[in-house]
Amino acid sequence: MRFTSERRFDDGVLEREFTLGEIPGILWTPGSASASAPVPLILLGHPPLGLRKMYPRLVDRARHSAAEGFATATIELPGSGDRPRLPAAERARADLRRALEAGEPVGDEIVDALVLPLVDEAVPEWQAALDVLLALPGIGGPVGYSGGVISIGIRLAVVEPRVVAAGLFAGSFVPRVMFEEARRVTVPLHVLLQWDDEGNDRQAALDLFDAFGSEEKSLHAHMGGHTGVPQYAGDAVVRFFTRHLM
Amino acid sequence: MRFTSERRFDDGVLEREFTLGEIPGILWTPGSASASAPVPLILLGHPPLGLRKMYPRLVDRARHSAAEGFATATIELPGSGDRPRLPAAERARADLRRALEAGEPVGDEIVDALVLPLVDEAVPEWQAALDVLLALPGIGGPVGYSGGVISIGIRLAVVEPRVVAAGLFAGSFVPRVMFEEARRVTVPLHVLLQWDDEGNDRQAALDLFDAFGSEEKSLHAHMGGHTGVPQYAGDAVVRFFTRHLM
Repeated sequence: MRFTSERRFDDGVLEREFTLGEIPGILWTPGSASASAPVPLILLGHPPLGLRKMYPRLVDRARHSAAEGFATATIELPGSGDRPRLPAAERARADLRRALEAGEPVGDEIVDALVLPLVDEAVPEWQAALDVLLALPGIGGPVGYSGGVISIGIRLAVVEPRVVAAGLFAGSFVPRVMFEEARRVTVPLHVLLQWDDEGNDRQAALDLFDAFGSEEKSLHAHMGGHTGVPQYAGDAVVRFFTRHLM
Repeated sequence: MRFTSERRFDDGVLEREFTLGEIPGILWTPGSASASAPVPLILLGHPPLGLRKMYPRLVDRARHSAAEGFATATIELPGSGDRPRLPAAERARADLRRALEAGEPVGDEIVDALVLPLVDEAVPEWQAALDVLLALPGIGGPVGYSGGVISIGIRLAVVEPRVVAAGLFAGSFVPRVMFEEARRVTVPLHVLLQWDDEGNDRQAALDLFDAFGSEEKSLHAHMGGHTGVPQYAGDAVVRFFTRHLM
């Protein structure tokens, strides 16, 4: 891991860009982090639109979490930003666009091709990032995963024992096979659903919530479209992590 | 309104039992209430099991709300506690018991007979209670309605302009006609749903949430049965009222 830039916000939060091999990432730590005991870490997920595009929303969430004592980190997804495209996912994305423009249902094979390679490639990268992030001074765990592509969150919650709680956003296409993985999730879950999400199948989101194996799981549905999650819903996610990571 | 007893808890909360005509009720005010500006009021709903039986849960909610600066009040429902039975509702309750014991579906006519007379009788009583409660020194409004029989909350939200926000519990039988009333609700709503509520139809609860006309409404589903609402879900209800009444 190599830090490539650093800046400090006036709330004391330290933002450091880094690269992990070819993967760019960002780490935010609270102003108090170096002075006091190691802080827990939240991995900030995001949709595959590129870190640069997602930065404004991510930095808001990071600073909000830092105010409650969390370090947060994120890395670029495979095929996004400046990283090499994933050809299969690119073809699936074109198929998806065609289906949506034609008003046709989005077939399982499109969803599988769009999401499964991304999950397969991304999850080991997030785990590798965890290895180096948790070795940094001031960052101690435990670890939560928050937001982004829900299938990545599901897989991480299943395979990565250091992730002890997850805040998931039921707002993206979910391959059928991920419903089976969802049954194997056991960590506490806080699931957000935008009730009128234009690109999301509400019933599928409810079925997915039902499928999770976790004993503690809660679903929080709010009005509005995909990007309309209200501020107070974000506050509740941070409180969820405070309950489980602090 | 006549106060019949008074006690002060060690957190400063003042509990006063009262009667309003033949209707018993309880008012809780924060320790700070008399000294400072008038506080908002939350009407605490409850199921028709009698105030005495519900007291432990109600006083917990009341003291929790008082800590955030709210007065809370509740009154006995028609047909409950020491109040005269409602013969139609009693017959419906017996029919309901028979249906449940026989494992039969609960017909619309049972639900209507169980709930609609209760709503028709209770809502004007809660409005009358509001008249006198808001006239007391130290209680200023605005007013929220929280929990209890959801159909009472729906009707109150529709007919009573002083109720500006409602926290509802999707955990009881809802007559079909109340779905139509739900469309006319416009105040902000915070709806709780127990995902595995043995006596509740989950799909009906989701349909009811969908029906509400409010621009701001959120659904919060938690694991467990009817009485298993987790503590943190109660905290979130108080925060909802803080956002809308403070």
